[in-house]
Amino acid sequence: MENRRRAKNYFKRAEGAPEPVVVEVKRRVHFNEVDLLGIVWHGRYPVFFEEGSEELGRVCGLSYKDFYESGLRAPIAQLYIDYLKPLCLGEVFTIRAVLVWDESSRINTEYYLLKEDGSIATSGYTVQVLTAAATGEVCIISPPLLERCRTKWKAGEFHS
Amino acid sequence: MENRRRAKNYFKRAEGAPEPVVVEVKRRVHFNEVDLLGIVWHGRYPVFFEEGSEELGRVCGLSYKDFYESGLRAPIAQLYIDYLKPLCLGEVFTIRAVLVWDESSRINTEYYLLKEDGSIATSGYTVQVLTAAATGEVCIISPPLLERCRTKWKAGEFHS
Amino acid sequence: MENRRRAKNYFKRAEGAPEPVVVEVKRRVHFNEVDLLGIVWHGRYPVFFEEGSEELGRVCGLSYKDFYESGLRAPIAQLYIDYLKPLCLGEVFTIRAVLVWDESSRINTEYYLLKEDGSIATSGYTVQVLTAAATGEVCIISPPLLERCRTKWKAGEFHS
Amino acid sequence: MENRRRAKNYFKRAEGAPEPVVVEVKRRVHFNEVDLLGIVWHGRYPVFFEEGSEELGRVCGLSYKDFYESGLRAPIAQLYIDYLKPLCLGEVFTIRAVLVWDESSRINTEYYLLKEDGSIATSGYTVQVLTAAATGEVCIISPPLLERCRTKWKAGEFHS
Repeated sequence: MENRRRAKNYFKRAEGAPEPVVVEVKRRVHFNEVDLLGIVWHGRYPVFFEEGSEELGRVCGLSYKDFYESGLRAPIAQLYIDYLKPLCLGEVFTIRAVLVWDESSRINTEYYLLKEDGSIATSGYTVQVLTAAATGEVCIISPPLLERCRTKWKAGEFHS
Repeated sequence: MENRRRAKNYFKRAEGAPEPVVVEVKRRVHFNEVDLLGIVWHGRYPVFFEEGSEELGRVCGLSYKDFYESGLRAPIAQLYIDYLKPLCLGEVFTIRAVLVWDESSRINTEYYLLKEDGSIATSGYTVQVLTAAATGEVCIISPPLLERCRTKWKAGEFHS
Repeated sequence: MENRRRAKNYFKRAEGAPEPVVVEVKRRVHFNEVDLLGIVWHGRYPVFFEEGSEELGRVCGLSYKDFYESGLRAPIAQLYIDYLKPLCLGEVFTIRAVLVWDESSRINTEYYLLKEDGSIATSGYTVQVLTAAATGEVCIISPPLLERCRTKWKAGEFHS
Repeated sequence: MENRRRAKNYFKRAEGAPEPVVVEVKRRVHFNEVDLLGIVWHGRYPVFFEEGSEELGRVCGLSYKDFYESGLRAPIAQLYIDYLKPLCLGEVFTIRAVLVWDESSRINTEYYLLKEDGSIATSGYTVQVLTAAATGEVCIISPPLLERCRTKWKAGEFHS
């Protein structure tokens, strides 16, 4: 399975759009995360993705708390994962989360889990929609919280 | 988000192929599975999918133990999930797992989580490839274990 | 480790007190619950205990929903587990949860996980205190919800 | 519940024994770890304890890999947890794991989860016994791996 599939972008980069926001979190595979074969059980990757996504949220002002305070929710509507190489007990790896520019009222995030040699172990994406906490209705128009994020993004504030 | 998307088949049904094998498991949402909003956290659905997949394995002779005894592994290569309606604390739901006929050396499974009113809360799929335990090489030709399963399948042994 | 320790009661049975309420839930060990050795990872047992505890709550009117509707919370204050025999992948076992009579404003539950031969794989207990949801204060006096439960308990309504 | 119980040592410190080995790991509470009340679900603390225990293992030469290579296993025989104060979504806390000297063939570890103000949110302990991987028999006499660890411990190698 090793080289079965190459890294790719899941979301199209629109021409002229700001560069994606990229964050990285480094961590280790714990004993409770591996299965009978000593590799991370496939269903535990959403935990890794979320650790990257939370870091993106802190950087871009899109954390759970930010949504909550704006009367919004951002439920996951789609999740996809490509398993390319296993991650093993004790292995150190990097979670790279990538927020991709999108004009609509949704949040598109790509994830790349990198081994220490830089190769991709796992990649995937999530799509989040925005809903009003009070009614549960999907936001058709981007709410102010998202607009504020985009203004800063265009101004280059999330790229160091 | 309620009626955003309708149930669909993820894998094409080849003409003349045997009907998919379908199993169902009924269970309840536990306290430790819900998040701050009282709904199942999105990353816990692979646990539900696996409960369905394990039941399929018992019915079709494709359990972890069956693979192990044949010197095979069946790692997940792809996972996809569509979140349509939330599942709430204490809610009773049905996990429907559907094994779809495929001539190649892989295992394609669809999952449908059904609320008590019969509507679909969540759907998705996994793709498993077969590998030799000894070498880690992907099986290009379907191994005997899979052939035996298909023979019974064609004979209608998995449809009651 | 097999016969290292015998089953015992963790909470004293007060003389003249009603018999404990006992419920049982049967289930199987799933692939995602075992570790590198093929046995349930020690940290997953609280999930099993909770499945028993939730069943007790449904029988005795002490579910999360019951507490919530009474403006109460019942946080876990102590957890203890004795690991006697491992539970293995695919193994069928029974979760026995035992609510022990206590005059004070707390909930004492014992857990016994039974193998199919009836022997005890794991045992343990939890202590829950009752708090007011509004203030977070511990209830010194047993709230009406608990008193109603005790009245039914004494009347034998939870013993079939 | 806030100040209900003070920090204490779970294992007795024998007179003249080397000081305990102490390690600390700092991390944050993730969204998938909190329950309906926004606090860490009680059953997720063994994950935190294990993160501390793994760090101790790396420092003291008692990791899973070390045991494996010595033909040993170190299963958890007992787990105890005192829940003193909740840990909340996004909160940063420190896992302090403390290996306490014991002459017998077991591993006694205490855990203290510290809030940023230094107060103890949760404390507890685990007892591990040593078994021979080949036979499953409990080691009555301390195996060489444990003796090597103790020699370094007495020599002060684990205290910086």
